[in-house]
Amino acid sequence: MTLIKVPKFDDETKNNPTLKDHKLVILTPWAPPPNYIASLQQKFPDLVVEYHAPPQSEWTQPGSESSSPFPIEQWKHVTILLTFTYLPQPKDAPKLQYVQLISAGANHILDHPLFREREEVEFCTANGVHGPQISEWVLLTYLSFNHRLPHYLNLQKQAHWSRGHFDSIEDATAKTVGILGYGAIGRQTARLAVAMGMRVHAYTLHARPTPESRKDGGWAPVGMGDPEGVFPSRWFSGRSKEDLHRFLGSGLDLLVVSTPLTPGTKHLLGKEEFEVLYNSSPPVTFVDETTGHGEPRGRTFVSNIARGPVIHTDDLIDALEGGLIRGAALDVTDPEPLPDGHRLWSTRNVILTPHVSGASTRYNERVLAILEENLGRLGRGEGLVNEVSKKEGY
Amino acid sequence: MTLIKVPKFDDETKNNPTLKDHKLVILTPWAPPPNYIASLQQKFPDLVVEYHAPPQSEWTQPGSESSSPFPIEQWKHVTILLTFTYLPQPKDAPKLQYVQLISAGANHILDHPLFREREEVEFCTANGVHGPQISEWVLLTYLSFNHRLPHYLNLQKQAHWSRGHFDSIEDATAKTVGILGYGAIGRQTARLAVAMGMRVHAYTLHARPTPESRKDGGWAPVGMGDPEGVFPSRWFSGRSKEDLHRFLGSGLDLLVVSTPLTPGTKHLLGKEEFEVLYNSSPPVTFVDETTGHGEPRGRTFVSNIARGPVIHTDDLIDALEGGLIRGAALDVTDPEPLPDGHRLWSTRNVILTPHVSGASTRYNERVLAILEENLGRLGRGEGLVNEVSKKEGY
Repeated sequence: MTLIKVPKFDDETKNNPTLKDHKLVILTPWAPPPNYIASLQQKFPDLVVEYHAPPQSEWTQPGSESSSPFPIEQWKHVTILLTFTYLPQPKDAPKLQYVQLISAGANHILDHPLFREREEVEFCTANGVHGPQISEWVLLTYLSFNHRLPHYLNLQKQAHWSRGHFDSIEDATAKTVGILGYGAIGRQTARLAVAMGMRVHAYTLHARPTPESRKDGGWAPVGMGDPEGVFPSRWFSGRSKEDLHRFLGSGLDLLVVSTPLTPGTKHLLGKEEFEVLYNSSPPVTFVDETTGHGEPRGRTFVSNIARGPVIHTDDLIDALEGGLIRGAALDVTDPEPLPDGHRLWSTRNVILTPHVSGASTRYNERVLAILEENLGRLGRGEGLVNEVSKKEGY
Repeated sequence: MTLIKVPKFDDETKNNPTLKDHKLVILTPWAPPPNYIASLQQKFPDLVVEYHAPPQSEWTQPGSESSSPFPIEQWKHVTILLTFTYLPQPKDAPKLQYVQLISAGANHILDHPLFREREEVEFCTANGVHGPQISEWVLLTYLSFNHRLPHYLNLQKQAHWSRGHFDSIEDATAKTVGILGYGAIGRQTARLAVAMGMRVHAYTLHARPTPESRKDGGWAPVGMGDPEGVFPSRWFSGRSKEDLHRFLGSGLDLLVVSTPLTPGTKHLLGKEEFEVLYNSSPPVTFVDETTGHGEPRGRTFVSNIARGPVIHTDDLIDALEGGLIRGAALDVTDPEPLPDGHRLWSTRNVILTPHVSGASTRYNERVLAILEENLGRLGRGEGLVNEVSKKEGY
């Protein structure tokens, strides 16, 4: 029996260890909230904390060479750094132990000598900061389509009350979501889907046959995500076309594309894959809200919150126009930005947003929560969360 | 520690008892799905099942006097009835034990002699059939507003890619939802809210101070709702204005109105209540997507899926235009249907749909699931789910 804890809020009475002889430099392009540093020092009384605005060039041109935001010789006391891209030279920061990045990825620092040469410095990403808002976007756009919200918003503009073909509105209960890439975003999407009564099929690159292998060591807000890996009822994996097609053929009402863009995932979904989706289940009759006509259509709604090129755009348009898939929601496209007048804009049954699913006013707050989690772990001598593997580079 | 079970699908291996000497008549305005009766008889081998279309007048004019859909003398064998409004006369159906209604309410049968005179006949509603779809509607419209979906749908129509003020998009994490009426719909809404990382405040008419009193005996799909009453972190109750205002003042980001319409709940929310909401928290700055201007506004988004008259319409319009509340989503209005050109159509920050939140293609399936649940309980001699109290009438 799998058991999920209901999170306890208002439970802030953790025992934080001291961080004697530690100095943290916060080098974020945004200033921490008022009183943040004071509250951090209250939690870690021995920790010295300084905030410096990074050189402007760091924010506008990530990775560009630029000068230190404070005198070089002061780096020698720094043991902990919160940063976007700026890193000191290895020789200038001999005591540095832990670097917390504010981005979910680490690509931009992999070539820096501090990362390459200083084995003992632990680098951590902000992986997990996107889970809540992107999973909300996925469910929002899927429910929007099923509950015909765009249609009713149009009627509202016309100031006209008409229920139309409301009897064809579908809810998500007992439907199946397939999650291609079961990371932080996929796991929180699974949590929401299960709460709505859906089944979850997960796809990962590496096989996860045991309960231990299904766990996720990455950060997630308290009570969110799927740290234990208990939500999927079926697990798929592999890197071959056959592996992928087995997953796509498993009877999916919603396919969430949440895999990184790599040479291996470029155009991962094209004509052939849309045909596999179509052929996996008998077509369903979809009632057009305007005409009232029923039309047989594939069962699957495709949601892309990863990167545009993971899907072959022309094939996607054909699949939508041809009814191979039920519909799609795309926060990312190829090309991107999508040029004005591109035919994807007017393709039927698609919801398009301009790469905004990752936006959240709570982004910075989550980055600071990851920092705090890791400060506690550092003090207790535990392994850090979201650590970048020196070997794998992620 | 509260624990939630992850539902197991595909687990259909229940031991169903026999229902010897029982005869079920299905009298629904919609025909049961193909093979339904065969599968029911497989589960309950001794049960005799008959489907009859009810008299047409029953569907168009609920409660109207009309003749039996089959010869009166055949009622004498009937022990179980699934119906919308048609009921036999008490003397014609001496063996009747259990009547399952297909509606969530029972108002329309309270005056029938079968209900009034035959103490031993158990009447059950279809309460719970609306939980999934209406809770989806609540979250869909709330997320729509926070993620600015209507704005992006407009840009899509213009075939124009622009992220605009996307950095003011808010997710639901750590926000608080207040649920005014913690029944089947409210409980499933709470489940979704908790999965999104929200806090839940529940309001009920009667106080629920103990774990036992917080349980819900009503039907919900497996693994959905809040049967144990574990999701709310705070419980409020009462019938006075002060009681209500204490709840409204508890710091709500989302207020879900899910209380029945009764003389006591008519105009429950008006000017005074919107002011309580506004004064409960410092105003938040809300960025207008078109102008980019920030404006101080009340914290609460109001969602009405109950009945229009629970909210005073003119006061609601004033609250929206005056910024006392952040926005609103209304599936029900007063008047309803909302006349073409009514000023609520063009009130700012409101999402309007024409009383469709309860629609679902799975409605009938859920009614039949309740029937099956109760057939099993009847056979095992257990109390039925969703039973109408002869004293209370609901």
